[in-house]
Amino acid sequence: MLADDLRAEFIALLGAGRLHDDIDTLALYSHDETPRHCPPEAVLFPASHDHVVGIVKIAAREHLPLTARGAGSGNVGGAMPTPGSLVVSFECMNRILEFDPDNRLMVVEPGVVTDDIDKLARSAGLMYAPDPGSGAYCRIGGNLAMNAAGPRCVKYGATRDHVLGLRAVLGDGREIRSGSRTTKYATAYDLTRLLVGSEGTLALITEATLKLIPAPEQVASIRVCYTSNADACRAVERVMRLPALPYALEFMDGRAIDAIREYGAATGLPADTAAVLMVEADGRADEVAQRLIQFERALSGPGMIEIQSGFSRDEIVRLWTARKSLSHAVKKIAPLKINEDVVVPVSRLAELVQAIDALASKHRLPIVSFGHAGNGNLHVNLMVHHDDTEEMARARACRLELVTTVLGLGGSLSGEHGIGSEKRQFLPLEFDPVNIDFMRQLKALFDPIGILNPGKKLPD
Amino acid sequence: MLADDLRAEFIALLGAGRLHDDIDTLALYSHDETPRHCPPEAVLFPASHDHVVGIVKIAAREHLPLTARGAGSGNVGGAMPTPGSLVVSFECMNRILEFDPDNRLMVVEPGVVTDDIDKLARSAGLMYAPDPGSGAYCRIGGNLAMNAAGPRCVKYGATRDHVLGLRAVLGDGREIRSGSRTTKYATAYDLTRLLVGSEGTLALITEATLKLIPAPEQVASIRVCYTSNADACRAVERVMRLPALPYALEFMDGRAIDAIREYGAATGLPADTAAVLMVEADGRADEVAQRLIQFERALSGPGMIEIQSGFSRDEIVRLWTARKSLSHAVKKIAPLKINEDVVVPVSRLAELVQAIDALASKHRLPIVSFGHAGNGNLHVNLMVHHDDTEEMARARACRLELVTTVLGLGGSLSGEHGIGSEKRQFLPLEFDPVNIDFMRQLKALFDPIGILNPGKKLPD
Repeated sequence: MLADDLRAEFIALLGAGRLHDDIDTLALYSHDETPRHCPPEAVLFPASHDHVVGIVKIAAREHLPLTARGAGSGNVGGAMPTPGSLVVSFECMNRILEFDPDNRLMVVEPGVVTDDIDKLARSAGLMYAPDPGSGAYCRIGGNLAMNAAGPRCVKYGATRDHVLGLRAVLGDGREIRSGSRTTKYATAYDLTRLLVGSEGTLALITEATLKLIPAPEQVASIRVCYTSNADACRAVERVMRLPALPYALEFMDGRAIDAIREYGAATGLPADTAAVLMVEADGRADEVAQRLIQFERALSGPGMIEIQSGFSRDEIVRLWTARKSLSHAVKKIAPLKINEDVVVPVSRLAELVQAIDALASKHRLPIVSFGHAGNGNLHVNLMVHHDDTEEMARARACRLELVTTVLGLGGSLSGEHGIGSEKRQFLPLEFDPVNIDFMRQLKALFDPIGILNPGKKLPD
Repeated sequence: MLADDLRAEFIALLGAGRLHDDIDTLALYSHDETPRHCPPEAVLFPASHDHVVGIVKIAAREHLPLTARGAGSGNVGGAMPTPGSLVVSFECMNRILEFDPDNRLMVVEPGVVTDDIDKLARSAGLMYAPDPGSGAYCRIGGNLAMNAAGPRCVKYGATRDHVLGLRAVLGDGREIRSGSRTTKYATAYDLTRLLVGSEGTLALITEATLKLIPAPEQVASIRVCYTSNADACRAVERVMRLPALPYALEFMDGRAIDAIREYGAATGLPADTAAVLMVEADGRADEVAQRLIQFERALSGPGMIEIQSGFSRDEIVRLWTARKSLSHAVKKIAPLKINEDVVVPVSRLAELVQAIDALASKHRLPIVSFGHAGNGNLHVNLMVHHDDTEEMARARACRLELVTTVLGLGGSLSGEHGIGSEKRQFLPLEFDPVNIDFMRQLKALFDPIGILNPGKKLPD
């Protein structure tokens, strides 16, 4: 519990109803989607940039850690409080401050729901390209913090590629502005892209100028079934060598298909399907038809047992049924899975998938893999039971081998989920001590007192 | 001159022939394209990353300023030495270390000529998108330092958007690595994009992993002539509202046309032409034809007096003749022009061009404007004679008003040339003292002793 005088100071700053520290609220804000939790001392709901400045100044004076939070839909503990910390929830800073279709930009507060940005952009024939799976409820602030991405990013890039400028508050309450409203910029140091993906450890973002791009006239989908993971991976490589990039290129491995079958949602998948690719083409109507043909040709090859494509909304929904049910299917098997989010150069995807199979056998663990194959970005889910200590020990050994394998393939720890509290112990495997030490110095520059999301992103 | 022992130490480190301090070399490396100069103490030609580390360590110990240099083709004084400094020329670190078409990347040393990267990429159907006008001779290291761009960047983005990772040496000799070989990345702080555009003030880049994209099958050009700048600017706005982005959207104002006429290269331009747009479309052959029609429709409107398009190499060369002669034509009028490189949101371009006309009248200065209109990025050339002090005083007043106007339109000081020594005094007009102070702190973190390109990018 906060001391009475501090509690009063925050309430005086924010107004009534913007500080909550009842037991239910603290429980609700004690975790993100990671299966661990730690209740904060209080949850603050600022309504403006000035509120955020005020909060940070008090926290800096009192050495109180602050955990920024959007919707809490992350899954690496990025928004999980640390002992003694205050959660700064951006849910009430949810205004779209400006929509400028002529310059293809939108200025938003961090609490805006990601899909709402895209919806408004569509009203002028534009789109906000990054499309995390949680788009219907996640907040753009969390996307900015983690450099979130999604299926469309294989063609259009991740969150970092769609931010023109930021307004943010450093760990001592100073305000910085970065970037511009222009599509080209060579003036100041690029703090914009440094803050994107910094996971609330460098500054609290209070305003973002987002880049919008023309929305495609049409999107069409292809579902392809293969008899093995290896055949599907080789098809991914073939598609990614084409001049036209797909709008999405998603992969589900054999164990993911099994999970969907158990869940009863494998409707329409041929019986011997052991891997599925979902591929999309976008563009003008005539372009899409042509691209679909190119993609279908590249997708065809050894081990392909079925290929279906769809242009209409209904057909697309039908083709995606299995894929969309995957998340629920996986949760049914193991509600508290360990979710890795590794990424490798796309030409090494087949090797990664093969190595994961070997790890599953070696460590006797069910591993479900799926993800954004066009980027070489796989979500590798170790289906564990957290109360089974022997199984958890095997899972730990397996994770370490997985990460080592990924780095050996020229990959990286995280493609889109970030590092948070859950992966930071692996950072020394990817970076030498000089680099990690420099990251710490960089954090100390932005956050001199060390109150911004301590215990995240960087190893102890 | 360097002290004998230091001279000997550098020669021992680098080997014979890699330190030059004869008067001719010092003169040659005393300037970039800016009409100012300052001879260095010596010019060093490292051949490897380890050479660079060694140079920085000696320089840090001796507090010797280092000016990194590619081809010296910049025009803001970025590669101009400061008194007492050593030039570190990257001309000999010019190896392409790796070309990986399957993963669409190339690993290069900073001394590689930009066009050579693109040429090699084309051999596999790919391209390196940023295309500065100096591409035939500039070095990628300079492009990285300044976040260089060119006509294609209206569609594909600037240098910063095409770098996956970097290897670099901090101002105390520490080596850092940033980014990855993957198309998606959410692991460490994004130092890659921070170093791009940092103008040699934060680190010396020794290796870059560049992103390649599919090369278009075909490119076609349109040349459109208008009776006024205003009509041309409105056509730019119409094109930039179309879903398909142009491959280039270049503008020349009335005074630029006059300069070309005086130079004798205005062949084929109708007599009453007062502004020209050059527009390009790229894609598959059938796409290009369709896009050309869309662009031509959008370009047509009040004040248009001629529109010509070309698909073949010869036709394209003919249409670009006037534009390609502009640089020489402008140099003929005033070899030592002041070249501003301002950028505004594209919807404000017409206002900017109108304001420039007014400034030219008010300050009695010929001003030639041209540039990348699709990005709102104009090169505003004040045609002055540096020995005319009264004219130079008017030019100074005019520059200040220009910058104020640009910032008032929501723009920024530089679109693609950077800040260097020549524009740093304007930075306080765009950023408040807190932000500038923070930029200084950031520099001090990367370069604790302050030896990396002092007197650039940041105001005193």
